[in-house]
Amino acid sequence: MFNFTLKTTDGGARRGVLKTAHGDIETPVFMPVGTAASVKAMSIEDIWATGAEIILANTYHLMLRPGAERVEGLGGVRKLMGWDGPLLTDSGGFQVMSLGDLRKIDKDGVTFRSHLDGSEHRLTPEISTEIQKMLDATISMAFDECTPFPATHKAAAVSMRLSMDWAARCRQAFTPRAGYGQFGIVQGSIYTDLRSESVERLNAMDFEGYAVGGLAVGEGQDAMFTTLDATTPLMPADKPRYLMGVGKPDDLIGAVARGIDMFDCVLPTRSGRTGQGFTRRGTVNLKNARHADDPRPLDAECRCYTCTHHSRAYLHHLFKADEVLGLMLLTRHNLTYYQQLMAGMRQAIEAGSFADFAQNFAAEYAQGDIDAN
Amino acid sequence: MFNFTLKTTDGGARRGVLKTAHGDIETPVFMPVGTAASVKAMSIEDIWATGAEIILANTYHLMLRPGAERVEGLGGVRKLMGWDGPLLTDSGGFQVMSLGDLRKIDKDGVTFRSHLDGSEHRLTPEISTEIQKMLDATISMAFDECTPFPATHKAAAVSMRLSMDWAARCRQAFTPRAGYGQFGIVQGSIYTDLRSESVERLNAMDFEGYAVGGLAVGEGQDAMFTTLDATTPLMPADKPRYLMGVGKPDDLIGAVARGIDMFDCVLPTRSGRTGQGFTRRGTVNLKNARHADDPRPLDAECRCYTCTHHSRAYLHHLFKADEVLGLMLLTRHNLTYYQQLMAGMRQAIEAGSFADFAQNFAAEYAQGDIDAN
Repeated sequence: MFNFTLKTTDGGARRGVLKTAHGDIETPVFMPVGTAASVKAMSIEDIWATGAEIILANTYHLMLRPGAERVEGLGGVRKLMGWDGPLLTDSGGFQVMSLGDLRKIDKDGVTFRSHLDGSEHRLTPEISTEIQKMLDATISMAFDECTPFPATHKAAAVSMRLSMDWAARCRQAFTPRAGYGQFGIVQGSIYTDLRSESVERLNAMDFEGYAVGGLAVGEGQDAMFTTLDATTPLMPADKPRYLMGVGKPDDLIGAVARGIDMFDCVLPTRSGRTGQGFTRRGTVNLKNARHADDPRPLDAECRCYTCTHHSRAYLHHLFKADEVLGLMLLTRHNLTYYQQLMAGMRQAIEAGSFADFAQNFAAEYAQGDIDAN
Repeated sequence: MFNFTLKTTDGGARRGVLKTAHGDIETPVFMPVGTAASVKAMSIEDIWATGAEIILANTYHLMLRPGAERVEGLGGVRKLMGWDGPLLTDSGGFQVMSLGDLRKIDKDGVTFRSHLDGSEHRLTPEISTEIQKMLDATISMAFDECTPFPATHKAAAVSMRLSMDWAARCRQAFTPRAGYGQFGIVQGSIYTDLRSESVERLNAMDFEGYAVGGLAVGEGQDAMFTTLDATTPLMPADKPRYLMGVGKPDDLIGAVARGIDMFDCVLPTRSGRTGQGFTRRGTVNLKNARHADDPRPLDAECRCYTCTHHSRAYLHHLFKADEVLGLMLLTRHNLTYYQQLMAGMRQAIEAGSFADFAQNFAAEYAQGDIDAN
């Protein structure tokens, strides 16, 4: 069965467990992004080794390639990619809205052209919900419009209300299955009255969980936190709360402090491909020449495969030589870093020391990288 | 100590063990190519898991980037990349000769420009030998000219004799170290009298092993086998014999039948990056649409990570979607395939059934891939 239990709280921070058909998820949790049924450059065993308990895949990409029918025929995304754990899929809305001239939105849904071959497709609340079922998502997301930023109050209201109408249709279209869930998405831009109205409307639909959407779209961390401050207290305490597409380490800590339980972001995987590594003392650009002769690991206290086997000098060399192994190793590290960060937060909440954890983290992160060799 | 022991023979095929400072190598052996101190798309644990016991790296690439002095400062290639097993380096000669207008050859050595930044460098028998020592190669190769094919008898003789002069200088420049070895390289194109002269000259220099060079350069399998037939019987039986840059599965089997102990080739790794997989029933192009819905593994009898975890449909999807995981998984499979092929040959030689093994392999390989789903 699909069930969220709040184990303890520490200020606004929450420590819970989400039970699903495909495994339990300790929260707060970070979900690595596996856009096209692959967490880029990571084998399934490597993903598990980072400590991940749930991953995300993108409906838009998968409906175009390999196609929802094909994925369904192969047993769903989890079966296709060999991931036995829980899977969350987005609704496709965010990507479709980003297509610009290639999409046309109406009251009923969105018609768009594939960025791959120009073929025409359509997504509606009903179609998105059905496709996510075909993909066998443990958690499906409501199909909504991610309100662009900035938006006037009026535009944000119109957009939010469209999303709420669509949310109701998604809920109607959702087939309840034991251990599976569907999340509604709170919209309303940075306007607290709209966020409040959105929460109220979604609550009445009784989703298995709720996401905060439309943030991390350019409003900045302060506005994001302010919006969360006004939103999360209105959300039901007994359901998981998911902040979509966030974020940097200090975004995660600040959002957990404000009652968020779930996150996803491409930052650790994308950074892993561009040579940026996360450490307790901030980010490190491994392409920088100062690492060329440095026999030390990226982070001496990290227990990941990369840091226990390889030096900064080697990672630097691999990135300079465009070796695939470089991005493989750095992605492993970055995802482990994110999972370790979440584990640290979970531990701190249990110990009632989350505020100290957040303060210590910020102080160490601000120190910057260790000196050159 | 560096020591080759011939355990048994079966016809021309030899079953041996090569003991080195960095581990024992069961022969016949295939060496994965780690050009720039990385077997492309493979972590060290993955390399070990395929069954590899020795890997190869390229002096030319490493002397340019990250540079021989830098590698030496970091403890050698093995330390740099985290490979604890034996390492063989080529001399840089093959790559340098391939640079065309960018290189100028003289009696003493070769001056060339880097393909990376145009900087000028020089390789001589002495410099190549010294660099390979800096790289901490378990097995160093003599610096030679790989005679282009086709070559007239006269040109092949001149080229071979230059290589023999250089081999003598390499041997002189080599610093003996316990458990380390240096191999001379037999040249002479397809001319048996020249091969014979080359073997004779090298034998007098008493290398720890001998390679057959200048083959697999366009002469075709028949000419390669004919040349081996005329060459390997002349080579000392108590030293390992290495056929450079070979080859396809049936090349390996035919060469083992003719007394070769060691191989290297980019084929399994390069094919792994282009979607070509090796199976007992020939090669399979995983980009082909017929795999799109096929839930079966690439090779149902293969015990590699890829075949025990993933379907053809998933591999097909990964290659179509340009996901790095596709080449990671297929490289793992292909290298495992090659190691399994070598293991099969070793077993067959021990059992005295190498001829049967070769025949059965050829029959099964010729069947072609299993039918589409």
